Amino acid sequence: MRKIETIHDLRSGLAPARRAGRTIGLVPTMGALHEGHRSLMRIARQQCQEVVVSIFVNPTQFGPNEDYQRYPRPAEADLACCADERVDTVFMPSVEEMYPVGETTRVAVTRLTEGLCGRFRPGHFDGVTTVVAKLFNIVQPDRAYFGQKDAQQVVVIRQMVRDLCFPLEIVTCPIIREPDGLAMSSRNMYLSPADRKQALSLSGALRWAQQTIAAGQRDVAALVAEMREQIASSGRCRIDYVEIVDADSLVPKTTITGRCLIALAVHIGPARLIDNVVVEG
Amino acid sequence: MRKIETIHDLRSGLAPARRAGRTIGLVPTMGALHEGHRSLMRIARQQCQEVVVSIFVNPTQFGPNEDYQRYPRPAEADLACCADERVDTVFMPSVEEMYPVGETTRVAVTRLTEGLCGRFRPGHFDGVTTVVAKLFNIVQPDRAYFGQKDAQQVVVIRQMVRDLCFPLEIVTCPIIREPDGLAMSSRNMYLSPADRKQALSLSGALRWAQQTIAAGQRDVAALVAEMREQIASSGRCRIDYVEIVDADSLVPKTTITGRCLIALAVHIGPARLIDNVVVEG
Repeated sequence: MRKIETIHDLRSGLAPARRAGRTIGLVPTMGALHEGHRSLMRIARQQCQEVVVSIFVNPTQFGPNEDYQRYPRPAEADLACCADERVDTVFMPSVEEMYPVGETTRVAVTRLTEGLCGRFRPGHFDGVTTVVAKLFNIVQPDRAYFGQKDAQQVVVIRQMVRDLCFPLEIVTCPIIREPDGLAMSSRNMYLSPADRKQALSLSGALRWAQQTIAAGQRDVAALVAEMREQIASSGRCRIDYVEIVDADSLVPKTTITGRCLIALAVHIGPARLIDNVVVEG
Repeated sequence: MRKIETIHDLRSGLAPARRAGRTIGLVPTMGALHEGHRSLMRIARQQCQEVVVSIFVNPTQFGPNEDYQRYPRPAEADLACCADERVDTVFMPSVEEMYPVGETTRVAVTRLTEGLCGRFRPGHFDGVTTVVAKLFNIVQPDRAYFGQKDAQQVVVIRQMVRDLCFPLEIVTCPIIREPDGLAMSSRNMYLSPADRKQALSLSGALRWAQQTIAAGQRDVAALVAEMREQIASSGRCRIDYVEIVDADSLVPKTTITGRCLIALAVHIGPARLIDNVVVEG
């Protein structure tokens, strides 16, 4: 496995594989790698001849009062994890490499970025689409792998790929959960033992909604009210949103019909946690 | 020469050349091809093994009161011109192909797009960078050719390519002029014989400035005042701007130092004409 820090070296490093027509898979991450990331790497490893993992804590997708500074950066453990998953290339650029002085270009997807997390994190998705567009142009992968944990991100990136005609395929990989149901997240390490226990109310509420819908409930307002109540009664927390939207258009639903995304974002202790499930109405 | 109308066909059409490692050159145009476009095609033909010309009147770069509807679309003559210049592939997509229903992604370069034409054509450069990003992802050229006539456009596209790490080289080609000095433009065909004569005041003023600077004048305010006077006294017209800016940053100059861009935009009759020269201070 090679570790590469510059765009120039990454391009020349991948050139022989590209010339040989080998398929290239990209797993873009912000590091602090966990089982969720590992599952992306494994799927990429199965589907592609060259696997590139990028590790870059992207400043432009953090708001001014968010956790950019304290976001975990365990470089050695991350490299060991990538080696363990038989990754070929780890791309770990500096901020200056990705955002040189004087850069002024932004890629923005409208509409899909207005609701859900977009409402609470203004500018977040512009930062995501901009850095992902850069990574796509740097790595030029055949496939790029994203986790369903960031459900809105996946929909937004798929839209960007379609709209800007990026010549690659987006592969969405399932959420990986702890045995007790908590969705894997680099931000789980912010949680105290008490927070960690309370955080189970998120996946619990989603599981309850899934079961209640399977049992015939179709009324979105009733589902959301009960989920909010379950989460709020778990202890001190701040709910950004609990919403049920069309899984493709992200337009809010009033009734469960078609593929629906049930998504939520909740602050527990020092962590802002997100989770979701997709249900068929 | 083949004429291709869909993104899918273009990609499969270029796949063999790409696999064979042949260099691909893209000349993006809005059609109504003239000697300026021909010069781009000739340079591309010299430098690349496969030459692609795109012909697409891009709606998103026209303002609501601009000439999108009446912009000339002489498809047969354009195809003959491309054949004449030994172009391999002409890409003529429909608006629906380039902007399918529901597309919502924009690529925007800030700062460089604020002055000069950007001030008078809000949204214009966002339309340009968005469509050019699409074309780059569709054609994936090694080199793309742009005319210096659209000086601000070239600077903006170079910035986008640098910022988004597009894996290609931008080649800027010199302005091609009529024997009497008028810069070639598809919009020159809007001019009546009287307009056409009056339009010479643009290249005339630029030539005067060039000579005056060569003779030692360094004061931008004096130069601009005299150029405006020369243009205004040529007949009825509306000057959008006459400006002298740094050729790379497009920041306004007060004194001629370094590489300076002298640029202007003037409405004469039904046409909005632009022209420029670069001088060394």
